[in-house]
Amino acid sequence: MNALQLEKIGSLQLKETHTSETKPGEILLKVTHCAVCRTDAKMWERGQRDLVLPRVLGHEICGISEESGKRFAVWPGSACGHCEDCRRGTENLCREMQIIGFHKDGGFAEYVAVPESSLIPIPDDLPGEIASLAEPLACAINGLRQIRVREEERILIYGAGSVGLLTGLAVSAQNASPFIREIRPDRLTRSEVFRDRIGMTCAEDCKEHRFDAAINAAPSSDTFLQGLSALRPGGRFCLFSGLIDDQPIPVPAINEIHYRQLRIAGAYGCTAAQMKAALNILADHKNDVKLLIEDHITLEQVPHILPKILAGEAFKFVVDV
Amino acid sequence: MNALQLEKIGSLQLKETHTSETKPGEILLKVTHCAVCRTDAKMWERGQRDLVLPRVLGHEICGISEESGKRFAVWPGSACGHCEDCRRGTENLCREMQIIGFHKDGGFAEYVAVPESSLIPIPDDLPGEIASLAEPLACAINGLRQIRVREEERILIYGAGSVGLLTGLAVSAQNASPFIREIRPDRLTRSEVFRDRIGMTCAEDCKEHRFDAAINAAPSSDTFLQGLSALRPGGRFCLFSGLIDDQPIPVPAINEIHYRQLRIAGAYGCTAAQMKAALNILADHKNDVKLLIEDHITLEQVPHILPKILAGEAFKFVVDV
Repeated sequence: MNALQLEKIGSLQLKETHTSETKPGEILLKVTHCAVCRTDAKMWERGQRDLVLPRVLGHEICGISEESGKRFAVWPGSACGHCEDCRRGTENLCREMQIIGFHKDGGFAEYVAVPESSLIPIPDDLPGEIASLAEPLACAINGLRQIRVREEERILIYGAGSVGLLTGLAVSAQNASPFIREIRPDRLTRSEVFRDRIGMTCAEDCKEHRFDAAINAAPSSDTFLQGLSALRPGGRFCLFSGLIDDQPIPVPAINEIHYRQLRIAGAYGCTAAQMKAALNILADHKNDVKLLIEDHITLEQVPHILPKILAGEAFKFVVDV
Repeated sequence: MNALQLEKIGSLQLKETHTSETKPGEILLKVTHCAVCRTDAKMWERGQRDLVLPRVLGHEICGISEESGKRFAVWPGSACGHCEDCRRGTENLCREMQIIGFHKDGGFAEYVAVPESSLIPIPDDLPGEIASLAEPLACAINGLRQIRVREEERILIYGAGSVGLLTGLAVSAQNASPFIREIRPDRLTRSEVFRDRIGMTCAEDCKEHRFDAAINAAPSSDTFLQGLSALRPGGRFCLFSGLIDDQPIPVPAINEIHYRQLRIAGAYGCTAAQMKAALNILADHKNDVKLLIEDHITLEQVPHILPKILAGEAFKFVVDV
């Protein structure tokens, strides 16, 4: 089959490979759509903690079981199922976690091997291209879960890229109020229609200690530093995006956490239950979410659009496999 | 009356002053005991965010109402009572907070003006010297509340000073297991009897990602950095002590929060309800807690013991007023 494999950092090659072998409990899913994540672009540019090379990338996957004809979105994790975290329902923290597209081959291929427990049925009226956004939306839901967002709260989101906007949708779906902070005017302009539809307001001034919670969907240290000062006493910050610059965090900023009883919660990945919740939100908002699809592309085109993704110049590209 | 006043940083003077005036809702409490906090020593050495000079210091206060003859511990806050935080039961975050010994004159004096709502009755059989430790114990309880300590969890405490040890007592009272990390052998030796009595184990190796939560009762940045790596995935760190060194926190440490879904919660002060809970724990453990009283001193002696407190060479000094 054709598959797009990251050979080493910087080298993503379309190759003719053997179809993945399935282990007991896995099925071979025919990939229909696989969206390109900013993390795929980061892996290509600089690697990632959980990446094992060489690797077929792609973890925002929808496909069809050739046996049953049923359509599924894929929770990209495979957890052990019996450790403390799996029993707690935080299986994304399982220490034996193997992530499709990170530790195991992913969805930029005609077929992908998936544990049956990771298959989440797609609602009948939801197009596969939209369903391929279930994984990033589920990650946003996981982020909001870590900071316990409640109804009517004011939530500040850093970054008007597709993940920041999906986070706004998730906030809205919880009957809380999403606000956006984005330093690039082009990204504000591009996202305007979507933001209007889901009621996501521009946060003009973030210095007033007035937000109940904040979440970063952008990797600059400034999102962390400014986010802390935007919070009310006792407010919560979700470190949703890892930070990529090398600017260390000054001690007085950390001490704000102490003095104002702030809370910081990390978020990484999502759970299978959150994938299911995400599919339901997508089904309710498919016409809104359609606005976040930049283009449909082929496997061959993926290497060419990665710089555009890293530059933050586009919404989601979905590979039609 | 005699009062110990911080005139400016570094200058603490015993002075003959007017008795504090009481406002409506306040009473004049005759101070019987006031324990010396490390924060008093820090204020003297370098100031503090909430300190307004000149100021009579002292915020770990027990006293007697000359009118009723009743004994009270003092919750050192005065909150507005009607803001969002006051209504939430986190009145220590009230934006109009005035803290006795910080914004208002404190307990290193013969009398102190205290809002009636801040008076917490002392159980009959609890000596005032022990009751004067209710405030630091309540702060520890508040810290554990921020990280939601549950039964049987393993809690790592940084610092075997009196506050770290009182935190161990609070952990123990919640049926969780306290562990101690202390780099100074003299402090380990000095605390051994107390630690044995409350079942506080020495944590030999903190590198194993095995603690459910950690809390720093010591102000070095290392407590924060090491604390994060000592936690299991999803573990919680309470930033109980502000950090005093200038070593900024490197981005990879912050990214651990992201990748392992850790939580950081600040803690500052305590609530009146936590003061009450602290008095009950002290009543159950008065013979243990007695071990944490280094000496009884007079007001005149306070300036002389502050360097010893800053050097971490003593447990609690209690001023018998």
